[in-house]
Amino acid sequence: MLRKIVREYKEILLYSLIALFVGVIIGGIDAIFGEVLIKITEIRRDNVLTLVPFLPISGILIMLLYRYFSKESLKGMTLVFQTGHGNNDRIPKMLVPLIMVTTWITHLFGGSAGREGVAVQLGATIAHTLAKKLKFLKNSRVLLVIGMAAGFAGLFQTPLAATFFALEVLVSGVFLYEALLPALVASFAASTTSNLLGLEKFAVDIPNVLSFSPEILLKLIFVGALFGIVGGSFAYLLSYSKKKLATFIESPLKRIFIAGCILSLLLLLLHTGRYCGLGTNLISLSFSEKEIFGYDWLLKFLLTVLTLAAGFQGGEVTPLFSIGASLGVILGSLLGLPTMLIAALGYAAVFGSATNTLLAPILIGAEVFGAQNTLFFVIVCSLAFIFNGNKTIYSAQKRFNFFSNENVEV
Amino acid sequence: MLRKIVREYKEILLYSLIALFVGVIIGGIDAIFGEVLIKITEIRRDNVLTLVPFLPISGILIMLLYRYFSKESLKGMTLVFQTGHGNNDRIPKMLVPLIMVTTWITHLFGGSAGREGVAVQLGATIAHTLAKKLKFLKNSRVLLVIGMAAGFAGLFQTPLAATFFALEVLVSGVFLYEALLPALVASFAASTTSNLLGLEKFAVDIPNVLSFSPEILLKLIFVGALFGIVGGSFAYLLSYSKKKLATFIESPLKRIFIAGCILSLLLLLLHTGRYCGLGTNLISLSFSEKEIFGYDWLLKFLLTVLTLAAGFQGGEVTPLFSIGASLGVILGSLLGLPTMLIAALGYAAVFGSATNTLLAPILIGAEVFGAQNTLFFVIVCSLAFIFNGNKTIYSAQKRFNFFSNENVEV
Repeated sequence: MLRKIVREYKEILLYSLIALFVGVIIGGIDAIFGEVLIKITEIRRDNVLTLVPFLPISGILIMLLYRYFSKESLKGMTLVFQTGHGNNDRIPKMLVPLIMVTTWITHLFGGSAGREGVAVQLGATIAHTLAKKLKFLKNSRVLLVIGMAAGFAGLFQTPLAATFFALEVLVSGVFLYEALLPALVASFAASTTSNLLGLEKFAVDIPNVLSFSPEILLKLIFVGALFGIVGGSFAYLLSYSKKKLATFIESPLKRIFIAGCILSLLLLLLHTGRYCGLGTNLISLSFSEKEIFGYDWLLKFLLTVLTLAAGFQGGEVTPLFSIGASLGVILGSLLGLPTMLIAALGYAAVFGSATNTLLAPILIGAEVFGAQNTLFFVIVCSLAFIFNGNKTIYSAQKRFNFFSNENVEV
Repeated sequence: MLRKIVREYKEILLYSLIALFVGVIIGGIDAIFGEVLIKITEIRRDNVLTLVPFLPISGILIMLLYRYFSKESLKGMTLVFQTGHGNNDRIPKMLVPLIMVTTWITHLFGGSAGREGVAVQLGATIAHTLAKKLKFLKNSRVLLVIGMAAGFAGLFQTPLAATFFALEVLVSGVFLYEALLPALVASFAASTTSNLLGLEKFAVDIPNVLSFSPEILLKLIFVGALFGIVGGSFAYLLSYSKKKLATFIESPLKRIFIAGCILSLLLLLLHTGRYCGLGTNLISLSFSEKEIFGYDWLLKFLLTVLTLAAGFQGGEVTPLFSIGASLGVILGSLLGLPTMLIAALGYAAVFGSATNTLLAPILIGAEVFGAQNTLFFVIVCSLAFIFNGNKTIYSAQKRFNFFSNENVEV
């Protein structure tokens, strides 16, 4: 028995050592990607009227880049999920520079998109490519998961949320505990590296001002369910719009151009660029008690769906954070609850319900807003998870149903 | 699609409604069981020298009760797990009064045992029995899980930890998300009911006095790994001793009598009763900065193993809490860390590693010691989980390995 334990731990420790190396590399790339993105966001903010009209043309550029260098890379996250499930064994290396550059382009010209898609995909691709070279590793999929964790961690500097996100996102209902230690190592390494390289972490300390009472609990249940419906609707509408738009305009080039024209018009007309980019502006407003409009969350929601359905790049998570936070501000003031806390709960819960994850949003709550409100995050994120209608933005995510026995093959 | 959602939610809401009812009932029974147990513990504490010598005879009484009323009920937790896995469909109703009474007997005469075994088994049995009567329910196993959650929640008044414990304990690596909402409802109902009926909740607010640094992180990793090894060893040694003792002395009656003789002698010789019962005395000492001996955790560990291997009843969790807390006090002062915090971390982590659960101990940390230290609990409990050598006190617990494809059939 002791020999079995030693053998098992030798393997975990080997993976963890590689994870340390991988984490540092990915954290470094994350830092470069993230800092350039912040610069680009500033440039766009100062030149909205000059840059946003070029969004449709930038879309054409994005599609041409993919067509020329690696068409397959367009599958993005789906490729990562399929590899994680063992249904694919190759992710093109070109995916990494392509998604970085096309995301920068998307953001420079004002598309409403995220950035975590880049981080997770580059992490997964780099780690998986390395694993294939290290022939002595028994399972390259373990490293893929570690890479996903490192990518997320380096970008947001939330190593615990990143670890659990990578462990829970591939198959809803299943936790890849075998990768827990190396994923933790990679996440802390990536997070520390990107921090040392100057990438700033977004964090707001929200004091613990709410105490439990039946009335508060009922309100939190209502708020959580609503966040879940919004997150689930986002996932549903995104996949629906992608399909509809693709049947409506078959050519990807035409599609991104036409949708880009409509988008750039809307982005300029609706508060001149307020809904461009990541949505960090809405997040800042939400947590500094400045003006958030009642429709902010809805416009950000719709414009992000349109941006991503058109074919622009980047991901969904930061827009989801901003949708949740700005909706939270409104709900908080409507229900007479502390708005900053409800904004924080929305930030986490809408992200969780759209990605069909539960631990990641709870830990985002603890790592971004301070651990003192964890129990509220557990309740609200659980409700959001329950009421997301089982939707997810990751079309290749699988699901493990314990009771119905309709289980996934993994 | 909408119809599918409505159908699915109708079912979840139906389960939740039943869960409310089940939670109140189980919370009520938990309160009676728990309050009598506290009274019994006080009586024993005041009469150690009179009562503990009768431990071997009380063991015979326990075995005769099981033999006379329901021999099958001796399988206890294994029966619950098998039913949860779908490998058994009947839990004898006699299990409920039997385990309550035999646990009271165990504690009155000074056996070192827990109480959560009773709570979880009575919850599971009652809920499952009810489910079999409600023919319109599609799946009686959902109610079993809800009952487990309610049982745990009513006893410890930690509804979130109880919910996640019930969802994660049946199959390590799998979360029974389909039961999340009803389990939450049942847990809150049970917890509120037992609280209203006067059962006190154990809680200590541990201030957030530690801040992250590489040195602190390293120390926490070490502490976490050690808690994991202790918890894993407990699980290993318990199952080993049960087997050994059963081959050594075949008759259960003789076994509990002989082991009871040795036990009662040791319990009296070693600080006259300090290691009897639940171990709440050691927990109180740990969190009031009174004297904890360096060997307290080890003696409590060994005497609990002997008590349970002999055939006495109750469970393992509260002794595990006390082993972790008293070991934490020692480690904290050795490493120059705040002893109360490390005691709290040990309280949670040793429980998690012995039961092979991760979310439950993290949430125990938040619900018993305040949420402000959640991130430390996440780190230490994760390390403990990793280093428990994949052991568990629940011999029928299954395991889902994502990467190795040696997956369980559920």
